[in-house]
Amino acid sequence: MPFVRIDLLEGRDAAQVAAIGEAVQRALVETMNVPERDRFQVITEHARGRLVYDAAYLGVARTDGIVLVQVTLSSGRTTAQKQQFYARAAEFLASAGVRREDVAISLVESTREDWSFGNGVAQYLVLPKDEWK
Amino acid sequence: MPFVRIDLLEGRDAAQVAAIGEAVQRALVETMNVPERDRFQVITEHARGRLVYDAAYLGVARTDGIVLVQVTLSSGRTTAQKQQFYARAAEFLASAGVRREDVAISLVESTREDWSFGNGVAQYLVLPKDEWK
Amino acid sequence: MPFVRIDLLEGRDAAQVAAIGEAVQRALVETMNVPERDRFQVITEHARGRLVYDAAYLGVARTDGIVLVQVTLSSGRTTAQKQQFYARAAEFLASAGVRREDVAISLVESTREDWSFGNGVAQYLVLPKDEWK
Repeated sequence: MPFVRIDLLEGRDAAQVAAIGEAVQRALVETMNVPERDRFQVITEHARGRLVYDAAYLGVARTDGIVLVQVTLSSGRTTAQKQQFYARAAEFLASAGVRREDVAISLVESTREDWSFGNGVAQYLVLPKDEWK
Repeated sequence: MPFVRIDLLEGRDAAQVAAIGEAVQRALVETMNVPERDRFQVITEHARGRLVYDAAYLGVARTDGIVLVQVTLSSGRTTAQKQQFYARAAEFLASAGVRREDVAISLVESTREDWSFGNGVAQYLVLPKDEWK
Repeated sequence: MPFVRIDLLEGRDAAQVAAIGEAVQRALVETMNVPERDRFQVITEHARGRLVYDAAYLGVARTDGIVLVQVTLSSGRTTAQKQQFYARAAEFLASAGVRREDVAISLVESTREDWSFGNGVAQYLVLPKDEWK
């Protein structure tokens, strides 16, 4: 599992929000060895003043179109994979109408035993890896 | 402290939401050495399309009754404790009207020094352990 | 980046909410080597029953004015820095009208490679440190 939280300012329609979720998932699948079906996302829209961002930190020109993506996932991905993920997420999100400058991503790592996908079971401890799909 | 975030789709009444929070806390107390009073939870309901889940990943048949539980807690719990927590949470949540297949849980670990419970103090660094209650 | 999530009960006006965000950022800058422009916060207000807290855990008398602050940040801060952060956050939040007892903080640590601030790039891996501003 990655568990993905996406925070946005209000103002997008349902199709745009859906496309944003799809773009993040597609980037995870392509770069981070995430199974296609392993998709769990919470997308929250906020009123002005409730999502606060700096419009210039590190020389990136951000706007109210900002998309804050926080992904919790098991450790084990390489630095190169993470960099590929950031690049592909920005690219796919651009196709979904998000400026590349407005894509801010953070990762939080946990371990295999930190996940239960239902039925009270830690599937990654008891299911053979070839059944992770 | 565990700090618990619970994400749901809209449609439950206040009593059902309260029972869900209670069930998760009861499982933490019973399996993870969490003091009864150590309860801090944020429960958020989302519109359709804002909480996205796969209905079959790992062979678990999920529905819109899905309950996503994310627990941030100090490290130190064993693998067995975590597995007991998942099992008991699913069991107690079933009593609260949630299908066992709809209980998805993830854990994020931090350390003792990563918590302040008020007054600007890191209580777990300065309070003797027998006063953690 | 620290990425800051702040959870509150409903009832404050926009100015109070803004002051709370400012206070947390000011404490991070002063104690945790966070650049002033490095500010990314999501502040969410909840209805009663959706933010659950214990009113006495560890002997701290909490009220509905509770402010739950969760900061995800790169590892490397010392225990002393974290303690200074808790103390200053409680102090600055008191100036913003929050009782010190009502300030609950948790930290989650990640690493430098876990952040992208826009453009699909892991800035902390590719930008010289003196440009982190």
